[in-house]
Amino acid sequence: MDYSLLAKKYNTPLYVYDFDYIQAQYNKIKKEFQARKSLVCYALKANSNLSLLKFMAELGAGFDCVSIGEVKRALLAGAKNYKIIYSGVGKSDEEIKEALNLDILMINLESDEEMKRVENIAKELGKKARISIRVNPNVDPKTHPYISTGLSKNKFGVSLNKARLMYLYAHKSEFLEPVGVHFHIGSQLTDLTPVIEAARIVSELLRELRALDIDIKFFDIGGGVGIKYENEEEPDLYSYAQGILAALGGQDATIVCEPGRFLVGNAGVFLTKVLYEKINDTKDGSHKRFVIVDGAMNDLIRPSLYEAFHEIKALKDGQKELCDVVGPICESGDFLGKDISLPKLENGDILVVKSAGAYGFSMSSNYNSRNRAAEVALQNGTDRLIRKRESFDDLIKNEKEFI
Amino acid sequence: MDYSLLAKKYNTPLYVYDFDYIQAQYNKIKKEFQARKSLVCYALKANSNLSLLKFMAELGAGFDCVSIGEVKRALLAGAKNYKIIYSGVGKSDEEIKEALNLDILMINLESDEEMKRVENIAKELGKKARISIRVNPNVDPKTHPYISTGLSKNKFGVSLNKARLMYLYAHKSEFLEPVGVHFHIGSQLTDLTPVIEAARIVSELLRELRALDIDIKFFDIGGGVGIKYENEEEPDLYSYAQGILAALGGQDATIVCEPGRFLVGNAGVFLTKVLYEKINDTKDGSHKRFVIVDGAMNDLIRPSLYEAFHEIKALKDGQKELCDVVGPICESGDFLGKDISLPKLENGDILVVKSAGAYGFSMSSNYNSRNRAAEVALQNGTDRLIRKRESFDDLIKNEKEFI
Ligand SMILES: Cc1ncc(COP(=O)(O)O)c(C=O)c1O
Ligand SMILES: Cc1ncc(COP(=O)(O)O)c(C=O)c1O
Repeated sequence: MDYSLLAKKYNTPLYVYDFDYIQAQYNKIKKEFQARKSLVCYALKANSNLSLLKFMAELGAGFDCVSIGEVKRALLAGAKNYKIIYSGVGKSDEEIKEALNLDILMINLESDEEMKRVENIAKELGKKARISIRVNPNVDPKTHPYISTGLSKNKFGVSLNKARLMYLYAHKSEFLEPVGVHFHIGSQLTDLTPVIEAARIVSELLRELRALDIDIKFFDIGGGVGIKYENEEEPDLYSYAQGILAALGGQDATIVCEPGRFLVGNAGVFLTKVLYEKINDTKDGSHKRFVIVDGAMNDLIRPSLYEAFHEIKALKDGQKELCDVVGPICESGDFLGKDISLPKLENGDILVVKSAGAYGFSMSSNYNSRNRAAEVALQNGTDRLIRKRESFDDLIKNEKEFI
Repeated sequence: MDYSLLAKKYNTPLYVYDFDYIQAQYNKIKKEFQARKSLVCYALKANSNLSLLKFMAELGAGFDCVSIGEVKRALLAGAKNYKIIYSGVGKSDEEIKEALNLDILMINLESDEEMKRVENIAKELGKKARISIRVNPNVDPKTHPYISTGLSKNKFGVSLNKARLMYLYAHKSEFLEPVGVHFHIGSQLTDLTPVIEAARIVSELLRELRALDIDIKFFDIGGGVGIKYENEEEPDLYSYAQGILAALGGQDATIVCEPGRFLVGNAGVFLTKVLYEKINDTKDGSHKRFVIVDGAMNDLIRPSLYEAFHEIKALKDGQKELCDVVGPICESGDFLGKDISLPKLENGDILVVKSAGAYGFSMSSNYNSRNRAAEVALQNGTDRLIRKRESFDDLIKNEKEFI
């Protein structure tokens, strides 16, 4: 793909997603579970562009949603309601009501209190709510603390003991129908053995529940499959799937997985234009090189928020030297990369920030009154716009009538 | 102010700003410099709501902008172009062109390379660009590294040596008119002696330049005046102003300051509704208490990004116990406060997150497809909406035509 042409055609900063790559990733994960009933529910928090969701829906994917906004996006993009899961620790009453009315596959409960609220709302609506319960297996996923979610000190899910009691309660309730069991222990896991360990623990619960005649159909192993940003090992999907199946120990269940990053992370790049290079003298007489670009932390906050590494490449050759790639925002926290090796660059040169398909645009903001980037899809050798660049009018739309 | 009424009237999550408080803060800083010509240029990156900007403009404030979007916001809100400064390390050619056409007070240059670009563009437009130069005095402001900007390892400004050469160049240029000198060493400074130290250094430069007949009118000391979030000492404005005046050593110049946080930080609160309380068992048999609320890191990212502390208060009494106040977003990084002392809370209770007027809404995003909050102004005992809550339609506006 000629990124400089795309940069010219759509301007920068720009997100570009390779839909063919997404399809290949989807097929990879689907294939590993092919011996079983399985449902891949794309976690759209990673990237919720409507055209991308439509593409996923056409591949047959379901969707893991964490807000009613995400549920609506999925439906608008053509998702089947019976392939939508709604998770999250903080659903409001209105969101629960809407989810029940939309008749989605299941609502994933994160606490006893939430179960009671869902029950009450289902009762009001005269419905029976299909639910799963998120178990917190207290397994350490060994990832960045912000995206580690499977320890009991995290806000997510309930303990095994509590889950048991909740299932018993739900089983007896006229307005609840327990159909799934769920866990998700963290994101960007390159070693998936903790997930398999969690699956073993939760699989025991599944066995117990079935012995009690509670008919759980869906075994939801969450997302978290890591990708290669730098030197990480790509996780081995075959052993992952085999480990999950072994953990299930022959129990029949539809395996649900919720990959986000794995499907879209390395399908995306972020294109940004060099404004200029700047060499600062430092006190000890040495120099510090900055490459100032038109993309910033408002566009891609991962480096700043998680100290995440993104590979950054120039489109030209030349002797490389270390530099920090930084944006126009007025804080030192505004960087896309530190100590990146790049050739000498000039105004107008394009840099390609890799692995930007997940948690890139979806976390972007208007900080410093910057318009959010445009998004482009690549498919079968052609490119097309899938989100217009924001305009100043977009920024002030909800404010201007009040001045 | 009855926050529970406001929460009912406008719904939550909600930002509320006390304009009377802003006015008092503005007057405080204005008064300290009253013996001199001074211009308070509000740094609108802290909070760029149009009605708030209009209020500032009516008070007589100028504006410190860091993008052309911010310049446009200020103008739309009624700012005078001759009170607008445009700073920032990464101005694009188009932004520079627009700034020159809008005939603002001055463009603040952050590098030699940028100066040449401004010169070229001014030449093309047949204009003379009024400029200032941001000096990086290499003074340690002792604040969070992300908002520390005055060290030579930071991307901002130029060394004293380089500044001298740049002024000489600009002075001779047909298309540049050096009118100001600028520094800004960091944000949330509760001890302002580093700023005074920087002022002393930059004041020497001013003296030199004038000896060379370079007529610098504006001495811009940046922003950074800290506020009380927790146990910080409120900085002493009197000694700050006196220190700056002493640093100037009798040189006549208009003092420009660029407070952001100081003017609006403690004027704002963020109101959020309790969804429910959740107690997690931990492995060692103890418990972990979470209060799950409807506000999240997409609304207020400071706790997550800077490990910033915000006081959080309930509107009811009761025996207090420690808890984490967390939002609905699916990461452990989504918290508004950790180890906060709060009474037992129920669904619908309102929490008041204090000191949320600066770097709150302006950094907010749509992560997890969450609509951004509404904003309300308080003035003379009345409240009014100044930004509508976002809707699902706002979220998909730039995408939906492409599916
Ligand atoms: C419940 C749940 N499922 C799936 C995911 C997706 O994770 P990933 O993008 O790492 O696959 C997340 C991420 O936060 C999550 O919280
Ligand atoms: C150049 C400049 N001026 C002013 C400010 C405002 O800082 P504060 O809000 O701390 O006053 C900033 C903050 O980043 C800045 O970079």
